[in-house]
Amino acid sequence: MHMDRRNFSVVQIVGYKNSGKTTLAEHLVRGLSALGVRVATIKHHGHGGKPSRAENTDSSKHLNAGAAAAAVIGDGEWQLTLTDRMPLNLEQMIELQRSLGAEFILMEGFKKAPYPKIVMLRDETDEELLGLENIIAVGGWDEPFFVNEQKLIFSLTDFSTYEKEMLELLMSR
Amino acid sequence: MHMDRRNFSVVQIVGYKNSGKTTLAEHLVRGLSALGVRVATIKHHGHGGKPSRAENTDSSKHLNAGAAAAAVIGDGEWQLTLTDRMPLNLEQMIELQRSLGAEFILMEGFKKAPYPKIVMLRDETDEELLGLENIIAVGGWDEPFFVNEQKLIFSLTDFSTYEKEMLELLMSR
Repeated sequence: MHMDRRNFSVVQIVGYKNSGKTTLAEHLVRGLSALGVRVATIKHHGHGGKPSRAENTDSSKHLNAGAAAAAVIGDGEWQLTLTDRMPLNLEQMIELQRSLGAEFILMEGFKKAPYPKIVMLRDETDEELLGLENIIAVGGWDEPFFVNEQKLIFSLTDFSTYEKEMLELLMSR
Repeated sequence: MHMDRRNFSVVQIVGYKNSGKTTLAEHLVRGLSALGVRVATIKHHGHGGKPSRAENTDSSKHLNAGAAAAAVIGDGEWQLTLTDRMPLNLEQMIELQRSLGAEFILMEGFKKAPYPKIVMLRDETDEELLGLENIIAVGGWDEPFFVNEQKLIFSLTDFSTYEKEMLELLMSR
């Protein structure tokens, strides 16, 4: 089934380390893709520093020699590195992915960005995150029963129970 | 010194495996960058298959789950993977890099593309490459003395001798 999407949507998954952001992203990418939606993702490198470059590749040699950008293609897949000599902010990356054909962008992190948010909570101490604007759903590894809000509340552990409702929520954006 | 470039240029380095294409690319990227030119590179993954993805990254998880594209930023540097579910041909990648600010694109390979070419020869058996269109220079690890053409002839082994003339040739494009 391919569902026609007239809209282009951006939704963020925010939460602290080990709250399940990437696991949720995998579920949602898989679910949206199965509905025929062309999904792109954006995330912040979690470990400090630049994203890992494959070592000793010709691309890394180009970059070390001073290239502002380096692209390599193989079997229809491009790897494009854009250094800070060719700076791009988050909004420009969103626009770039949209222009290349993305219908839905799922973003991990970037708490301060203004897009609709799914908040992942580890426990009560993370509840402050509920102060963020534009929250559309709240989840965690377990269902966060301490949350008292009129949002979709879900757990990763039992995600199949919530998947349909989550995807409907995203497709309605 | 920053040289103002009114033009946007694409130059290719073509030649068989181990003819010195990447070494030449490193020299030229370094030289052009030192002149203040914002250089981007494009190459074909030489080993068959898709370009290597860093393993077990969240981006690779997104892609394995079906994302058509995945971007990660760290310390001002983006890594963007565009799968064949978001296909981009060579001309579109050139246009993309240009739109992102590249002033000069140095391409390794893609013999059939129509851009001005620097041909790298290993020995006489590679001479057939001189039949390509739009050749502006011919080189190799050693200066290919068997070449009888009105082009810039150079060697990598003694590159410093030729560097100024090569860069002038490129900057004049």
